[in-house]
Formats: sequence, structure tokens, C-alpha cells
Amino acid sequence: MPGRPETPVLDTLKDPKDIRKLSLDDLTRLADEVRQEMIQAVSNTGGHLGAGLGVVELTVALHHVFETPDDRLIWDVGHQCYPHKILTGRRDRIHTLRQPGGLSGFTLRPESPYDPFGAGHSSTSISAALGMAVARDLAEETRHVVAVIGDGSMSAGMAYEAMNNAGAQNTQLTVILNDNDMSIAPPVGAMSNYLSRLLSSKPWVSIRNVAKDLVAHLPEPVGRAARQVDEFARGLVTGGTLFEELGFYYVGPIDGHRLDHLVPVLRNVRETRQEGPVLLHVVTKKGRGYEPAEAAPETYHGVGRFNVVTGALHKPAPQAPSYTGVFAKGLVAEAERDDRIVGITAAMPAGTGIDEFGVRFPERCFDVGIAEQHAVTFAAGLACEGYKPFVAIYSSFMQRAYDQIVHDVVLQNLPVRLCMDRAGYVGADGATHHGSFDLSFLLCLPNLVFMAPADEGEMMHMIATMAACDDRPTVLRYPRGEGAGVDLPERGTPLEIGKGRVVREGRAVALLSLGTRLHPCLRAADDLAAHGLSPTVADARFAKPLDRDLVRRLAAEHEALVIVEEGSRGGFGAHVLQFLAEDGVLDHGLKVRSLAMPDRFVEHGKPEQQDADAGYDAAGIVRTVLGLLAGETAAGDGAAVVDATGHPPRA
Amino acid sequence: MPGRPETPVLDTLKDPKDIRKLSLDDLTRLADEVRQEMIQAVSNTGGHLGAGLGVVELTVALHHVFETPDDRLIWDVGHQCYPHKILTGRRDRIHTLRQPGGLSGFTLRPESPYDPFGAGHSSTSISAALGMAVARDLAEETRHVVAVIGDGSMSAGMAYEAMNNAGAQNTQLTVILNDNDMSIAPPVGAMSNYLSRLLSSKPWVSIRNVAKDLVAHLPEPVGRAARQVDEFARGLVTGGTLFEELGFYYVGPIDGHRLDHLVPVLRNVRETRQEGPVLLHVVTKKGRGYEPAEAAPETYHGVGRFNVVTGALHKPAPQAPSYTGVFAKGLVAEAERDDRIVGITAAMPAGTGIDEFGVRFPERCFDVGIAEQHAVTFAAGLACEGYKPFVAIYSSFMQRAYDQIVHDVVLQNLPVRLCMDRAGYVGADGATHHGSFDLSFLLCLPNLVFMAPADEGEMMHMIATMAACDDRPTVLRYPRGEGAGVDLPERGTPLEIGKGRVVREGRAVALLSLGTRLHPCLRAADDLAAHGLSPTVADARFAKPLDRDLVRRLAAEHEALVIVEEGSRGGFGAHVLQFLAEDGVLDHGLKVRSLAMPDRFVEHGKPEQQDADAGYDAAGIVRTVLGLLAGETAAGDGAAVVDATGHPPRA
Repeated sequence: MPGRPETPVLDTLKDPKDIRKLSLDDLTRLADEVRQEMIQAVSNTGGHLGAGLGVVELTVALHHVFETPDDRLIWDVGHQCYPHKILTGRRDRIHTLRQPGGLSGFTLRPESPYDPFGAGHSSTSISAALGMAVARDLAEETRHVVAVIGDGSMSAGMAYEAMNNAGAQNTQLTVILNDNDMSIAPPVGAMSNYLSRLLSSKPWVSIRNVAKDLVAHLPEPVGRAARQVDEFARGLVTGGTLFEELGFYYVGPIDGHRLDHLVPVLRNVRETRQEGPVLLHVVTKKGRGYEPAEAAPETYHGVGRFNVVTGALHKPAPQAPSYTGVFAKGLVAEAERDDRIVGITAAMPAGTGIDEFGVRFPERCFDVGIAEQHAVTFAAGLACEGYKPFVAIYSSFMQRAYDQIVHDVVLQNLPVRLCMDRAGYVGADGATHHGSFDLSFLLCLPNLVFMAPADEGEMMHMIATMAACDDRPTVLRYPRGEGAGVDLPERGTPLEIGKGRVVREGRAVALLSLGTRLHPCLRAADDLAAHGLSPTVADARFAKPLDRDLVRRLAAEHEALVIVEEGSRGGFGAHVLQFLAEDGVLDHGLKVRSLAMPDRFVEHGKPEQQDADAGYDAAGIVRTVLGLLAGETAAGDGAAVVDATGHPPRA
Repeated sequence: MPGRPETPVLDTLKDPKDIRKLSLDDLTRLADEVRQEMIQAVSNTGGHLGAGLGVVELTVALHHVFETPDDRLIWDVGHQCYPHKILTGRRDRIHTLRQPGGLSGFTLRPESPYDPFGAGHSSTSISAALGMAVARDLAEETRHVVAVIGDGSMSAGMAYEAMNNAGAQNTQLTVILNDNDMSIAPPVGAMSNYLSRLLSSKPWVSIRNVAKDLVAHLPEPVGRAARQVDEFARGLVTGGTLFEELGFYYVGPIDGHRLDHLVPVLRNVRETRQEGPVLLHVVTKKGRGYEPAEAAPETYHGVGRFNVVTGALHKPAPQAPSYTGVFAKGLVAEAERDDRIVGITAAMPAGTGIDEFGVRFPERCFDVGIAEQHAVTFAAGLACEGYKPFVAIYSSFMQRAYDQIVHDVVLQNLPVRLCMDRAGYVGADGATHHGSFDLSFLLCLPNLVFMAPADEGEMMHMIATMAACDDRPTVLRYPRGEGAGVDLPERGTPLEIGKGRVVREGRAVALLSLGTRLHPCLRAADDLAAHGLSPTVADARFAKPLDRDLVRRLAAEHEALVIVEEGSRGGFGAHVLQFLAEDGVLDHGLKVRSLAMPDRFVEHGKPEQQDADAGYDAAGIVRTVLGLLAGETAAGDGAAVVDATGHPPRA
């Protein structure tokens, strides 16, 4: 590993505001230093590499020209913010990125006043920026508000809603379209095609000269702003009709890696104080300045640790196939036998494994872009015509499609298959990406079948169940990471819908697990043997429809029942309790506990620790059972509560 | 009331397919007859009047030209489908619109094969149509797929996501943009401005001649389709650059009330078989052909019964102010004392009462269009800057903003105020509009404060509580309809957060109510007195944070506890049960029941009957208490279950 890079300009910065005093030459050096520092940091921590490298010059230029943090700078998604963090007081902690207790991999309000809006999900920046701009107007203040959004994020409806609103308001707002032709995956859709046409039909003019002119003719910051911006912009490339029709003043495209272009144009945008919104079209290259990342942008979008010199990724050898990989395998296995199966994703082809399905069945595979709402209703349309759509979207992103799930799929009882990867805690990506709430927001819906596999073998059977269940919607949730290492069938066998299974017969105590909590439950049962206990362990398989006979039996034949799930309150355990109450089982007493996520957001960290903090790892389950049999009651938030040391209060 | 209108052409139609045989003259007569029949029907049933009147000619033309139901015709929102229902086999039941057991006020798949996709919420049609078009291509079939969408619906991100995807796919799809400059309220936003500019800059040419030419030069249905459409369209008005840039072939604008224009253009669109998507821009007038509705389109958007001759609306005299009106009153009262309060809605200014706030404080009132996602994150941006945004959106439409609530508001703990009107059953609008799930999808989120008022006086206090609570998100849910008739303070007094109240002290049985279920609980308590019982009645006020002391006390001091809420399973009752389990209260027995909505979708009907069917009206509560004390257990879905007769099994 090479030594720490030389950073003479970066070292002189005592305060982010010092960037405003640097010469163009020093800014260029600063950008190079930030780039090297960022590569060095991410090589040790892992994280989002390509996006940050693409905006190094833009970040430097923005902090040079705008008076951050009083001027508001909002990074869409936030995964490109590492250079921003290095430059805004967090350089000394950049090596802690995404580590437990360290810096977040995204913008985060509590972390810095330079992060006026947190992110993680895409396409929120224009809405937030417009809110801040309107607040500024109401308060009769003068600060600038700038949002930086990638072209991929422009496929989301939310970005359009915000532009549609901003374009009709007479408020100063700058949207920088960072056009790198790449979000997580190559972008898709008509907007992307449009941007490509815009670039190819309007080659850049000699912008250096234009910029010189601009500086020479810098208009007064007050006065007839609109006319002045007109004058300033006439020298630039015109175009961007679509944005102009949406009420934006379009400027660009300009080269996002040339500080001698960026600085004067940004300064002009800032000083002319255009009354309506401005869209500045900046073209960048993802992974810029680091050859391996430029050559393979999808590989280096999000990486683990790597060797800076060779670019070689440190990939720990997997112990078992990932759930994502098993999803792909199971889906392909079903689709080989059923030509009505189609695969749909929303800009997550590799992350969900849909890419493997697409290689095998390109004509039946659809990546609709960052457009979860459309993805689900598009699937509903396919289901109306007898097709079997499998929609693969991460649990936390499925929140974007909630109304479509309710209104278009479930209410019409259409057999759309929702496949939610990244359910449960996701580790280093943190609170924005945990799949915490899907059980709560979906189990309340009538009609649907909701499954969670205990391991990858079960997952194959559940995919087969989804393929076979053609009379109602089906949902599958599964975690990030590797399976349990069990044998995989070539193809799954459909399960009986609504039937759980008893995995281990015991007495006195029953553990009812949903999903991959089964293995901690089994380990807990082993550990409890040392205390002379032999719990029954059951795998619900179906969170809905609930196996009522199984639940009744567990309640009737045991003194205590512990329900374990990887999800928020109001989920599986809550629904089981509601059934037990209605069934009269609670009338005469049942020691029943529901282990679920604590009622708070959990920051990035190690998944094992997150599970332990939630109290639903094997040790937490053992603790709960022993406390329950000893007659203890939980305090506060229940078994999931930890005190300030991170330990359960009665451990 | 005038007699039944003369309908000689309509009377001859034995089958919807007969419309295809009619001459242009007969089509014109048919349109007039359908219009009169529709006015007559709605005058007796109430319903959506203006939207349907605006598309009478379009509906007739579509069924004349397209081979419905094999060609798929999807009405966005569906509230304009009454003429469609009259023409597609449901004429004999049109007088049952929105009545219990009668026709739905929206398109509904189970109702007719001519309704290929159900609706109720806006902007879903293009996504569904694209799914059907792709299914057609995969099946190598040739049917046409047509979506009809209003200009108001075009402000939703979902419509953009679908266009962005469709514009990049080489599939035949026709989107008819029904431009009537009006959705529920006058449309807002840049897209609306764009459409206005498009119309004003490109006045209609003598389209009658063009249409004649078109018919004469009708291209072959096979062959080089793209070139042919180019030829066909050159004679029409060109423009629509924005849509063209999104990959659509734009045709229009044409007069949507002239069948001699509509029929040839639609025929051409159908027969040229353009490979990519076509956008046909049709201009109509909402309420067309009924003078009172043309003159006051917002008033006649959705109406109760009215006098056909005079247009006078039969409005029953209100017994008490509506919750919507009290929301407006409370918000204005707070805003008069706090200039940081702003009001935001998403195309529901009158429906939510935000319009009254806007009259008083125009500069602090924002209608962002049908754009719930943006509305919430826009509010988050305002909250970042110290403003106090009140976002007023119906409960069922709030589903559209779920990820924004989670990711932008709650995760960042921003003091955005979410005000959800139409919580609980809404009556005649039916399953798409019931506010069923908000408790389930919001109570699982950390940080937030969730309130529901027992009556309109409580509501004033809760609005004051929201205004005062500036350190976290707050949520208020309240039902459609009138309050309980209690005295209203001029301004509310903030409540202690997380504290419920005991309204009536009793013994043996406790009723814990959330929201407006308090009054049925009190009536039930009165009725139970006849059985010698004197229940304690408590009003939770806060679903979150839960008043744990109150719940503990109710559980400890009573033999039985019945929790009552107007929402789906997995909501308030489920969270109370999860707390009781964790607290150890259930270990030794508690007769506890949770009355909530049954786990099925409930069609349109009378709200009182819907509440009775759910088992949480006063009679249902009495039944549950008596059963509970008699030692009965519930069967199946619990107390909420009804048998096929609509009566509880043990009533």
C-alpha cells in the first residue's frame, strides 16, 4: 500500500472558508490532493468510490464560489459526498467512513452544518432545496440554495415533481445536473436518451474564451437580473429545451473537470441572482482520475477495501452463496420452465441479481430506472395480462412504491411478486438503507402472501411458491449477505401457503422465528440446553397468511412464547399478538414476548452488532427466555432496550 | 325533476360493440344522449360530474374506433368513467352509482371486462398501459393499449416515470392527454404552464380538412409504420416538444368535443400502428354540456344530489362543523400568532381546507400539484430552515409519500406536521379512498408524535400541540365528515405529549379508544349500563408516544380491556399489545381485544354501515364486551369478522 499522499494545499486549509481565497492554480492542486486522499481513504474503508471521484472539481469549485454553509449545498443521494466531507471539517475522520461510530457514507445533518440535508435515497434534493429557497424568500434573506443531482436520479418521479413545482415558482434556486451517464447502473429511459442527444447535438464551444468574457463582463449582483443572465448565457451553448419548457433557465453543458470552466460559470450563476430556477448541466466522468474506477464504473460504484496501486479488490471468500445470488438462481430456474415469468427492477440490476436473469432472458427483463412507483404498476399491468412479474427492489426503496402496492396491486389482487432484498439491518449503509419497515407497512394489507426464508434452501422453495401462486400478490423478504450454507436444490418445490414448520420439538418454551432469525433461534436453543431447557423452535415461513394452528399449538403447549423477527415494531410479532388476543389465548395468561427492532433509527455499523443491539441475536434470545422464565418483566422498550453502554440493562 | 331523457340511439345498443357500426351523425346523437343520461343519474346519486361530462365525445369515439375490450382502454383516476360505464353494459345500473351494492364511482376490474385496470388514485394509467403493451408484445399479439390521462395527473412523478420508460421502449402505446385545465382544483406547476403555452402558441388549424385528408390518405396498417405516421402527422399541428423529447410521437392539439375530429384522428392512430408511444393531445372542457358545471367546475367536480334544471345542490344542513373546516379554523388560528407556519397541499386545497388558510395567508400557502412525494420533502426543506410546515393530504394519498416521510422527515427528525384528512372509512368513494393503513405504516417509525382527536374540540387542541411541538415530526389523523357538535375554542391549548385521558371512570371493563371512536365507546358504555356494567372509557389521544402509564393502569385495574380504532390491523391495537407483552402484563392473563378494520378491502357504501361491519360501532363494542365477559373467544378474524350476511357470527 502506498504511503499517505502529499497534500500541501489541503494541509493549509484551517477552515472550509479558506477554499474561497485560493487561486485557480491552487484549486487545481487542491482537487488533485482531495482525489488522492479520497482514494486512499476508501481503499481502507470501502464505500462509494466512483461517484465522489467524479465530483472532486465540482466540489472544490462549489465551496470556492458559494458561501457554504450559509449558502445551502445539497448533494442528491449523498454517496458522492466524500470530497465534500474532506473539505468541510471531516478530513481527520475520513478514514472512519462507514465504520462503527465513524462518519456516515452519506450526508447527515447531525454530522456537520455543511450537510443541510441528509440523504441516502435518490432524487430528494430538488424538493428539499426548493423548500429551503422558499424559506429564504419568506424570511427575506439572500442566501443561495444549490442542489447537485445525477442524471440517473432524474428518472425518478420525485425529481420531476420538484422541477414541475420549482419551474412555476419565481424563486432563486440552482440545480446542477451532474451528467455522468451512470447512477448505480447505466441509466435507462427517455430522459437519459435526451441528455445524450443534447450532448451529441451541441458540442461544447470554446468555453475557456467564453468564461474569460464572462469574468470580464461580470454583471452587477443587483439590477435587472433576468436580462443580465440572458446576456451571460448567450455566449454559452444554448439548448436544454426540455428543462426550459419546465421553467428552468438552462446553462451548459460544461466540462465538470475543468476548474477554469466551473469557477467562472458558478460565480456568474451566483452573482446574477436569476429570479427563477437555473439548471446548470455539468458533464463529469464517474471514477475520474483513478484508472480502475474509470474503466469499470459499475464495479467501483460501491467497493470494499482495495489495493490502490493495482485496484485489486479485497473480497473475502464467501462461505455460502448470497441471498441475492440465490434469488437470481431461483428466478432463472423458474423462468426456464415458465415463459410468463418476467423480471423487473428499478436501477438495481446487479444489486438484486436481476442482471443474471437478464443475461439469460433479455427480452423478459426490464430495468425501468430509478422509478419504483412505475416499476410496481408496470408489473401490475403485466399481471393483468397473465404474465408473472417478479419485481426486485430493496426493502427500503420499496417504500417509494407503497401506494402502488396498495392501490394497483393488492387492492386489485393481482399476482405481482415483490422481492425485497436488503431486509433487516444492512450494516455499513446505515439508517437510510436498513430494511426495517416492510413487515409493518405490508402485513396490514389484505390478500397478500408474505414469506421470509430461514435460509437459502428455503428461499428456492419460496421462489417456486411465488411462481406457482397466481391468484394473489406474493411478497418475499430476505437479508443482505450470505446464506447459511445449506444445500441448494436445482429448483425449489412450492410450499403449502400459510403453513409454518416446527424445526425442533421441545417443551416449556417455544421460539417462533420469521426468516433468517431461525438460525440464531436454533443456536439459542442449543445454549439454553445448558440451563436444562429444551425449547421448541418453529419457523413461521409465512408472516401472512399466519399459520394460526401452529401459533395456537405453540401457545397451548408451552409456558412461554418468544416471537423473533428482523423488523420494526408493528410487524410480525404485533400481528401474532393481535391474533392471540382475538383468539382468546391471552385471557388466561401466556408469557409472550416479541423481539423486534428497537423503536429508534440505527446508524451504520456491523450487522452482527446491530442484531445484538436489537436483542435478537442468539444471546439476546437466550437472555429473553431466561428472564421470562424467571418472571422478569422488561423495562422501557422491552427486551430490545439497551442502556448507554450498549448493553441490555439486565444482562 | 325532469323526466327520463329521450335516448333513441342509446336504446338501440344491445352490445357495446354496436357503437362501432354507428355513423358520425348517430355518434353525435349518442354523445348527447349519454350526456343527458349521465346528468340525470348523477343528480340522483351524487358523484363526479364534471370529469365525465368533459369526456363524453371522447368516450364515444374511443369505443367507436377501438375494439374494446380486446383493445385495452385505461381511464386514469377513473372518476371520468360514467359515460364509459353507460356505454359498456352498465347502463341499467348507472342509477346505483356509489350506492351500497351498486356500481363503483371508479373503474373496477371485477365490474366489467371493459375496465382492464381499476383506479381511484391518479397518474397510474401510463404505467399500467405500458405493462399491458409489453405483455402484448411478449405474447406476439396485436391489440392496442390506450391510456386517457388528465393534465392535472401529469404533475405526478409517477406519470413522468412511466413516460420516461415508455419513451425509451419501442412499443405501441397511445396516451391521450385530456387537457381540461382542471383536475380537482385548477392545476399548478410548470407542466401546466407548458401546456397552456403550447395551446396558445399553436392555434388549431382547420382540422376538419386535415381529418378529411387523413381519411383519404389512410396508410396501410402494415409497412413502414414510422414513416407513415410521419406523413399523417405532418398535416396536423406540430409541437409538443417536451413530449417528443421524452420519446413520444406528439399529435395535437385537437378539439375533444368534435367527433368529426376525434374519430378520424383516433382511427389513424389505431391503424398506423406506430411502433413507439403516441401522445394525442385532446382539449376538453370540464362539465361540458351542463351549464352549472361549466360555470363552476370545482363545485361540480364531485357533488351530492342536485336539481338538474336549476343546478341547485341538495346539501343537508350540517349538524356540526366538518373536521376539514375545523382543521382550517385551527390552522388559521395558529398561523395568526406564528408567522413561521406554512400550509402545503397536493392538489387538494378545498378538500383539505388549506384553501381557507390560503385566502388568509396567500404567501404562506403552497399547492404543489398532484405531487405528494415532493410536498413532503419540500416541507422537510422548509422545516430545516425553522419554518413550521403543515402538510394536508388525505390519508390514502399519503401512501404516495411514504418513503419521503420515512427518509426525509422522520429519519432526520424534522418538525414537519402531517395532517391526514379522510382517515377511516370514507363511504361512497370506496376502497381506494379509505384511510385504512396510516396507523400501520406510520406507528412503526421512531421519533414521531401521532395524534387522533376524539372530536372537533380536541382537534383544535391537537393543532395547537402540533404548532408548539417543534423538535420532532407530528401527525394528525381525522375522519371525513362532521364533528360531534361540541363547543369549539377560538384557539386550542397544547396538550401534554403522550398523555391520554380517562373520560369516564368505571370498573371491570376498560375501553381504550383512539380518535373519533370515543363517542361510540361512550354510547357503548351507556348501553352496557343496562347489563349492570360500568366500563371505564379512556381516550388515548396519542397513538405515539403511547401513554404507558394509562395502559398499565387500565390493564391492572380491569378484568377486560378493549382497544378501539378506525384503522387496519397492525395499527394502534397491535402496538398496545406489543407493549403489554413486553411489559409482562399478559403473563398472568388479561382479557384483551383489539377492534380494528377487518383484514379485507371494503367497497363503497354508507360509513355507518362500514363501521358496523367492522364491529367497532357502539353495538359492536357492546357485543365484544359482553362476549368477553361471558368467556367467549372470537373465531376467525376475531370480533371484526362478519359472515356472508354481513352480521357478526355470534350476534
